[in-house]
Amino acid sequence: MYTVYLAGEIHSNWREEIIIGCKDYDIKFLRPEYDHASSDDIGKNVVGEQESDFYNDHVSAKINSIRNHTYLKQADIVVVKFGEKYKQWNAAFDAGYANALGKKLIVIHPEEFIHALKEIDAAASAVVKSELQAIEILEHLVRSTI
Amino acid sequence: MYTVYLAGEIHSNWREEIIIGCKDYDIKFLRPEYDHASSDDIGKNVVGEQESDFYNDHVSAKINSIRNHTYLKQADIVVVKFGEKYKQWNAAFDAGYANALGKKLIVIHPEEFIHALKEIDAAASAVVKSELQAIEILEHLVRSTI
Amino acid sequence: MYTVYLAGEIHSNWREEIIIGCKDYDIKFLRPEYDHASSDDIGKNVVGEQESDFYNDHVSAKINSIRNHTYLKQADIVVVKFGEKYKQWNAAFDAGYANALGKKLIVIHPEEFIHALKEIDAAASAVVKSELQAIEILEHLVRSTI
Amino acid sequence: MYTVYLAGEIHSNWREEIIIGCKDYDIKFLRPEYDHASSDDIGKNVVGEQESDFYNDHVSAKINSIRNHTYLKQADIVVVKFGEKYKQWNAAFDAGYANALGKKLIVIHPEEFIHALKEIDAAASAVVKSELQAIEILEHLVRSTI
Amino acid sequence: MYTVYLAGEIHSNWREEIIIGCKDYDIKFLRPEYDHASSDDIGKNVVGEQESDFYNDHVSAKINSIRNHTYLKQADIVVVKFGEKYKQWNAAFDAGYANALGKKLIVIHPEEFIHALKEIDAAASAVVKSELQAIEILEHLVRSTI
Amino acid sequence: MYTVYLAGEIHSNWREEIIIGCKDYDIKFLRPEYDHASSDDIGKNVVGEQESDFYNDHVSAKINSIRNHTYLKQADIVVVKFGEKYKQWNAAFDAGYANALGKKLIVIHPEEFIHALKEIDAAASAVVKSELQAIEILEHLVRSTI
Amino acid sequence: MYTVYLAGEIHSNWREEIIIGCKDYDIKFLRPEYDHASSDDIGKNVVGEQESDFYNDHVSAKINSIRNHTYLKQADIVVVKFGEKYKQWNAAFDAGYANALGKKLIVIHPEEFIHALKEIDAAASAVVKSELQAIEILEHLVRSTI
Amino acid sequence: MYTVYLAGEIHSNWREEIIIGCKDYDIKFLRPEYDHASSDDIGKNVVGEQESDFYNDHVSAKINSIRNHTYLKQADIVVVKFGEKYKQWNAAFDAGYANALGKKLIVIHPEEFIHALKEIDAAASAVVKSELQAIEILEHLVRSTI
Repeated sequence: MYTVYLAGEIHSNWREEIIIGCKDYDIKFLRPEYDHASSDDIGKNVVGEQESDFYNDHVSAKINSIRNHTYLKQADIVVVKFGEKYKQWNAAFDAGYANALGKKLIVIHPEEFIHALKEIDAAASAVVKSELQAIEILEHLVRSTI
Repeated sequence: MYTVYLAGEIHSNWREEIIIGCKDYDIKFLRPEYDHASSDDIGKNVVGEQESDFYNDHVSAKINSIRNHTYLKQADIVVVKFGEKYKQWNAAFDAGYANALGKKLIVIHPEEFIHALKEIDAAASAVVKSELQAIEILEHLVRSTI
Repeated sequence: MYTVYLAGEIHSNWREEIIIGCKDYDIKFLRPEYDHASSDDIGKNVVGEQESDFYNDHVSAKINSIRNHTYLKQADIVVVKFGEKYKQWNAAFDAGYANALGKKLIVIHPEEFIHALKEIDAAASAVVKSELQAIEILEHLVRSTI
Repeated sequence: MYTVYLAGEIHSNWREEIIIGCKDYDIKFLRPEYDHASSDDIGKNVVGEQESDFYNDHVSAKINSIRNHTYLKQADIVVVKFGEKYKQWNAAFDAGYANALGKKLIVIHPEEFIHALKEIDAAASAVVKSELQAIEILEHLVRSTI
Repeated sequence: MYTVYLAGEIHSNWREEIIIGCKDYDIKFLRPEYDHASSDDIGKNVVGEQESDFYNDHVSAKINSIRNHTYLKQADIVVVKFGEKYKQWNAAFDAGYANALGKKLIVIHPEEFIHALKEIDAAASAVVKSELQAIEILEHLVRSTI
Repeated sequence: MYTVYLAGEIHSNWREEIIIGCKDYDIKFLRPEYDHASSDDIGKNVVGEQESDFYNDHVSAKINSIRNHTYLKQADIVVVKFGEKYKQWNAAFDAGYANALGKKLIVIHPEEFIHALKEIDAAASAVVKSELQAIEILEHLVRSTI
Repeated sequence: MYTVYLAGEIHSNWREEIIIGCKDYDIKFLRPEYDHASSDDIGKNVVGEQESDFYNDHVSAKINSIRNHTYLKQADIVVVKFGEKYKQWNAAFDAGYANALGKKLIVIHPEEFIHALKEIDAAASAVVKSELQAIEILEHLVRSTI
Repeated sequence: MYTVYLAGEIHSNWREEIIIGCKDYDIKFLRPEYDHASSDDIGKNVVGEQESDFYNDHVSAKINSIRNHTYLKQADIVVVKFGEKYKQWNAAFDAGYANALGKKLIVIHPEEFIHALKEIDAAASAVVKSELQAIEILEHLVRSTI
């Protein structure tokens, strides 16, 4: 049995496709908070509005890191997707975090990012272009597990 | 004495400013290959042209990772700069790698990236806007070392 | 699922509030021995009265450390509260122990301790003033866990 | 050869006594920033005045943690003194941090703190009342090193 | 309870003998993908035919390493068999990987390989000639487990 | 919940007393092979009579180490008893192994061994004279576990 | 500065070529005992002829492992060559050992072994065909080290 | 270069023979306090006479553990001798401590202890009968170090 963390951006619903595609396999999926507003505002909601955007973001990001880093540590495999929009530095950060812990990385990204993502691809055990391909790899990995 | 790795993008010469600014302190600086062409082409130069851009990049990135990951492990402190250009996913990857190893992070970035970099800033021990501020922090850290 | 250790002082019943507040969430709570007399006297009770206060305390504290340190290692998250009374050096010790192991810290303390607790707050993923706020953070963290 | 970190409070000059007392031994001493004002104000001095006391302290404490945690990791032995004044929660935090990393602890404190410090004393390899006694232990440890 | 990884070559069905021989014991067995064609072709099947044999093998081997290395980490005991055919460098690689992680090794090989396998035998907790002997050892280990 | 390994000599049935005394507590006990003949002869039984007493012992001891070291790693707490007979170097070896892994040690020995066991007692979290006292400590540790 | 271990077979003098080729770089090279007879016979020479070939090899291999494993741990980079002759299982074992410890691998082998070495190549940071190419990579890595 | 800790009993001068025998090799030797009276009395000398033999021994043993455990961690190789006299449980404890840390063990003992020391011998990389044989192994290990 594998524990798989679906890291990175939470603007699109790419995680659902993988979770549904693997629903018959013995895989435990973990993922970040997917309610974008809640993820951004948890700091403000709990400890109140801070004096600057920096600290509002800071408080929320530190609270969310409790979840993200704990799950990264619990995972055997980390899947990270780089989409066409947004900076996605947190996705790259998660990939580095996972790699340093010796977790296996599966990276999903479109062909245009080959050069920009070469360091992350170099650390990955698989580089694919679609969620479907990631599902096929996970399917291969679970097969015949005793 | 500290070992400091200057991670991330190699398009600008921000590292020189820090190294020169700290030249009188007992700090050992490490950095990635800064010859951009050599960094990109080392794979091609050694094992020959591959059949695709992906594999040309892949071979070079893996060779460069020998240096980058070895230095990240040797460092006490990792300084990473996010400039205004380029994707810089490798900079974010290095930051995640460093954080997972328990290294102390100093992040340099302009104010406009506050929201995009909130997860990395949350993992940092210091977030500053300029190389000069990073130098002031390093100066503070070395002072009175016995 | 998270394992949460509720560290620190055992003079007040702050732990119950958190445990009850999170009773519907998939969280495993661990805590120190909360019977104060038993915690203090376990050494005397088992190996007999020692020749000095120091050794009476010493024997009990070492036995209690079996529980406390084992639970700190098993935890993903450590919540530690600094109240208005007592030295609470053991609470600060637990926080340092947790931080060095890479556990995520949530610190609860009244505003007056901001300066005295700055080093511990700097190591924390969240700093709040009340048990209710800690509950809100835990609630945020468990939401939508797959 | 040993590396010894002198942790904890920086209000008094207890470290000098130990360093001078051991000046003929092959011991490398490390210590926190001892300029109290600089330690408190480094955040303000580098990144500017923050909007609240909490954040002023926070920025400084995180910068100082770069030094303190790096040195705690480099040390073989950590000496920590609990004096009669101040909360000294950072001293207890350092002791916990050191203990979790497997460092050997020497604790100095007056007799009146026996009960309050029982958990930290239980984790220590030596508990003494004076700097002189700590020096005698260090002298014993270095003797006849080949 | 033990977790046992049956490492190495997948040309013969030696694993079945051990699994069946231990079917009444509280042992969790893990093993590599045993469908040889699928193991070789998973890369091609998912990301398409690469431009060279090297990269076709490379993509498959990296995907398979997700399974193999994850299972090696999860195991308490690694059994590895060296048969009379094939290079079996991956079996030796698995043995080295397991040894560096502190896993206990049971090595099965015919007598003729004594000299060629001396380094791996030297790292093993048991060296036997047949699957039956490996089963007898596992039977001994589980007996009377409470 | 705790996992407790009952290490050391297998000539007497001291383990049963502890296991029965703790039968109502949520503790998982692990122990070495207690069939002395089987423990000594497993090597001979599986791989055949070796050419010398040294190698007969060697093969058996290595096979038994698979169990002992795996269980020492799985344990939170290690209880080790030093009785009045036999060399019991393996008991002391287990204690050192456990201590280096950061496991908590409870040592049982009669008063006459105070000087001979001072280094092991110094590494222990509790030193007692009887199995009953060890049971009382374990009872204290499990109480009120949530 | 890097520490490089030249692992694997000792029948040919491939190591000299690399050491000489890198003689002007700040690299510390480590290697196994290269006196083949001494490597094979050290057991016999020190503890005497054993009763079987297995034990003669066993004693020598364990003594040599003191050197090989210590050096593998000290290294940043491990270079391993697979030549055309011999089983070379120890080379593959070293590669697995290095990979599990997070060391960077450079693998040298002729093209004919692509399929047999695919698992080891998949774990490597560089795969080359000649010592000269390995030298070029090391040259690239040391360049501009500060 | 190797760091070698000469562990265990301090009643005889077996360490000198090894140190002198290796005086021309690049080996750093570490050893426990060899002044027996000082080793036993350091606790009493520094913190004063305790109320019982147990605590007098306890205070000294904990202080000496600062040296012994720090040196065990710094060592690559641990040599431990079991002589004909004394309980030597501390020697066996050191061997277990070293083994759990992955240090390489060389054990010296007379033939009569084969059965009593089988578990420790099983963990060793070499088992010899004399200091001279240990010297020959160390000589073999340092030869041709680059």
